[in-house]
Amino acid sequence: MIITISRQFGSGGRTVGKRVAEKLGIKCYDSEIIEHMAEASGLSRDYIADHAEAPVTAGWLSGVFRPEFAYAPSNQDRMWASQCAVIREIASKGPCVIVGRCADYILHDEVECLRVYIHADEAWRAKRIVDVYGETSDEPLKRIREKDKRRAAYYRVYTDQKFGDARHFDVTLNTGTFGIETCSDIICTLYQEAQQGK
Amino acid sequence: MIITISRQFGSGGRTVGKRVAEKLGIKCYDSEIIEHMAEASGLSRDYIADHAEAPVTAGWLSGVFRPEFAYAPSNQDRMWASQCAVIREIASKGPCVIVGRCADYILHDEVECLRVYIHADEAWRAKRIVDVYGETSDEPLKRIREKDKRRAAYYRVYTDQKFGDARHFDVTLNTGTFGIETCSDIICTLYQEAQQGK
Repeated sequence: MIITISRQFGSGGRTVGKRVAEKLGIKCYDSEIIEHMAEASGLSRDYIADHAEAPVTAGWLSGVFRPEFAYAPSNQDRMWASQCAVIREIASKGPCVIVGRCADYILHDEVECLRVYIHADEAWRAKRIVDVYGETSDEPLKRIREKDKRRAAYYRVYTDQKFGDARHFDVTLNTGTFGIETCSDIICTLYQEAQQGK
Repeated sequence: MIITISRQFGSGGRTVGKRVAEKLGIKCYDSEIIEHMAEASGLSRDYIADHAEAPVTAGWLSGVFRPEFAYAPSNQDRMWASQCAVIREIASKGPCVIVGRCADYILHDEVECLRVYIHADEAWRAKRIVDVYGETSDEPLKRIREKDKRRAAYYRVYTDQKFGDARHFDVTLNTGTFGIETCSDIICTLYQEAQQGK
């Protein structure tokens, strides 16, 4: 059974993923996915890191302005295809935690998944990106809202679902309310319960 | 601290609420709220039970057809006002579980709440309403979709929020994945953790 962790920017979802993997003694995939995507697609690591969650709504316009390539897949499409392939490959190797990258959606109909969503209030996340990520932005709230918008747009285009809709997850937790340690413990408990239930 | 439980129809959220209250030794309010609303509003218990979650979009039309009362509050508005008053009164008495009735929204800015959302896949809920509620409907799936639509419309009109958006809850759980007992245990654990954190 795979644990997928979707998360709001600044919510600590990545840290929760790492803690859960440590506690359960399984691997956590996060930035490694970008490395694998680079190998699979031929695009550079930096390009993928910068563009993988870019709003894809530019797609049709870029198509209009490059008529000679109109029927060729865009880089955005190539990234999505390699992302799906990489995530399926990772999942085929056995239990692990996968952070972000729409893994919940990509794997849902194929593999047993515990689908987790981690979020927190804006103010808690704004403080966290300054304290923990060392963000120097004068306006962390603005940065958070931009990232939220971007991630929601990306998720909507590729999954046709609203990002953060509880119905698409087995459990969602607010790290601002419970803290990262408690959330990690709860996910481990639920993972073990769900496995026993199978 | 109050526990509010919002839930999808057929998800077992009401049972979860009762179990949590038993385990924590506090009171669970569910259908009692309707009794109190009847007292507070002068409307009959049956009328409230039938109409409290009716789609409120009929409001403006009913206004058009009763011009002499156009500026008087509709029964729907009176029910909402009494619902808010009853829920605030209940919450003022100390820790308890309140199931449904937008209590999460009504109390959020006023009282410390653990906001819980309980949901499950359609198929699981369809089976449950036949097995547990004894629903005799030939089309339990259709009944579930109608109820979902109704509740979402009601929630949207009065709270201006999307029903089931994880960001408005501290924890959401899928009873179809974990079962009612595990969900109840997790909520008790989180309640105790959140209280220690205060």
